[in-house]
Amino acid sequence: MNCILKYLLVQVIILHITKDVFMEIELAKQYGFCFGVKRAIKIAEETQKSATYGPLIHNRLEIDRLKNDFNVDLKENIDSFKRGDKAIIRTHGIEKSDLIHLQSEGVQLIDATCPFVTKPQQIVEEMSEQGYDIVIFGDKDHPEIKGVKSYSKKDAYVVLTPDELRNINLKEKIALVSQTTRKISNFLKVANYLIENHKEVRVFNTICNATFENQSAASELSKKADVMVIIGGKNSSNTKQLLTICKDDCQDSYHIESVEELKKEWFNNKRLCGITAGASTPDWIIKEIFNEISKIS
Amino acid sequence: MNCILKYLLVQVIILHITKDVFMEIELAKQYGFCFGVKRAIKIAEETQKSATYGPLIHNRLEIDRLKNDFNVDLKENIDSFKRGDKAIIRTHGIEKSDLIHLQSEGVQLIDATCPFVTKPQQIVEEMSEQGYDIVIFGDKDHPEIKGVKSYSKKDAYVVLTPDELRNINLKEKIALVSQTTRKISNFLKVANYLIENHKEVRVFNTICNATFENQSAASELSKKADVMVIIGGKNSSNTKQLLTICKDDCQDSYHIESVEELKKEWFNNKRLCGITAGASTPDWIIKEIFNEISKIS
Repeated sequence: MNCILKYLLVQVIILHITKDVFMEIELAKQYGFCFGVKRAIKIAEETQKSATYGPLIHNRLEIDRLKNDFNVDLKENIDSFKRGDKAIIRTHGIEKSDLIHLQSEGVQLIDATCPFVTKPQQIVEEMSEQGYDIVIFGDKDHPEIKGVKSYSKKDAYVVLTPDELRNINLKEKIALVSQTTRKISNFLKVANYLIENHKEVRVFNTICNATFENQSAASELSKKADVMVIIGGKNSSNTKQLLTICKDDCQDSYHIESVEELKKEWFNNKRLCGITAGASTPDWIIKEIFNEISKIS
Repeated sequence: MNCILKYLLVQVIILHITKDVFMEIELAKQYGFCFGVKRAIKIAEETQKSATYGPLIHNRLEIDRLKNDFNVDLKENIDSFKRGDKAIIRTHGIEKSDLIHLQSEGVQLIDATCPFVTKPQQIVEEMSEQGYDIVIFGDKDHPEIKGVKSYSKKDAYVVLTPDELRNINLKEKIALVSQTTRKISNFLKVANYLIENHKEVRVFNTICNATFENQSAASELSKKADVMVIIGGKNSSNTKQLLTICKDDCQDSYHIESVEELKKEWFNNKRLCGITAGASTPDWIIKEIFNEISKIS
């Protein structure tokens, strides 16, 4: 456990006595950086004078840090990579055609795709080769899902609800995978619809354990908190999932990316503030926000 | 559509006026004999001077009829079959070791196993060969399930609820099949537990369409009926499922096997009596009971 975490854990319960209100601040039992993000940042730090193709992780502050401290650039345009350049593949993976294009252009590839994302890519490729119809539970506009879908050898259907499947003419044998960062309960709704209506559904639970654990800890904390602060990139899927989970039990739940977004009024007359963070949120941002809430409350 | 059905459909609404009560009688839109049972009875009728190993279907009255009219005996003891005897395999199938034993003894086999039961037998055999752990959703004491389980090349686990799985140490890859006659909602509970806890669950929905259709029609009718009569063998799994489905919406639901079990008081002050029947219930029994209720009410 690093020093920042030790520092925060020691402070897990800080009592602030104002005129008539006490507020505790408590961190979720599990939060923040997952295995795949830690691995990707380590790879990036070790690959100076390079560029990621698309944001390495969904956290602009951390991306700025990598640029400033490690000379790891961010390129959004594939054609800006030239022969001999070092291109880091983001944690979410990229589309197969882009990978082939970069290889054919002689760009040096450094793969920081999270292994939990590589898995559904491989499943979709293999199952489509075996003749299964492919259903992907996830957000069709998310880079991870664009990447996973691109591995299918035939049409693949990306949905978030069973309703979206009603007008699709699927065959009897279906393979189902999930975006790694989604809620299991919604995944099961899609799985159940398919099982009810088809002879064989091969369900691959590709939701990653870190997502499970962060979600479960956030849910537990939000049940007792009066206000929840969820820290993470605004386009981070897993952080958005944490927000919806916390809102189930704690209406006053707020998703912020940086300390500037905190508002004093959120904490008026609250007794317990819970904090959690998405898988791509670095500890230094969490610490900064924790300290600021301590001052406000 | 045969004459008996036409006769009953014409009579779907019979009004009986007593002093102060009207009672209608309505048949479910789908009920009674399924494809597999019709097929098995046809096979038995065409195989005179034979014996079934175990009851051909779960309806003792129909079995008596086959004995009396077609000389199709019922043998419960495998050793009573001798070389050259004709053994009819029941709709529910039998255990693989029994099949091999009969073959090795030179008994002539006539297979009346329902093709919808043969399917899970084949799946369990193939999936266990491929290294999947096998979970069977069903009643471990039911002949169909004893048969299906016997096709597994390794331990297979038979359960009715997710709770029964909690202490079983299953591997990451699991194949799940269902007894053909069970409720889909309970099958999904087991499927969901497995999906939540394992990487790959290959779900084979082996609940047969006739079961679906009979259950759906029974559910629809029980929502408006004051009393439901469910006709079928006392050890018929699909008939017992119909009873539980009807009880969800109509507390006064009764499972009977023959006309003698009807009780007048069930129909006191009722306005609508619904009738449905399990997949192994012949039309002549349904007609007899329909007529008797008409007289009572």
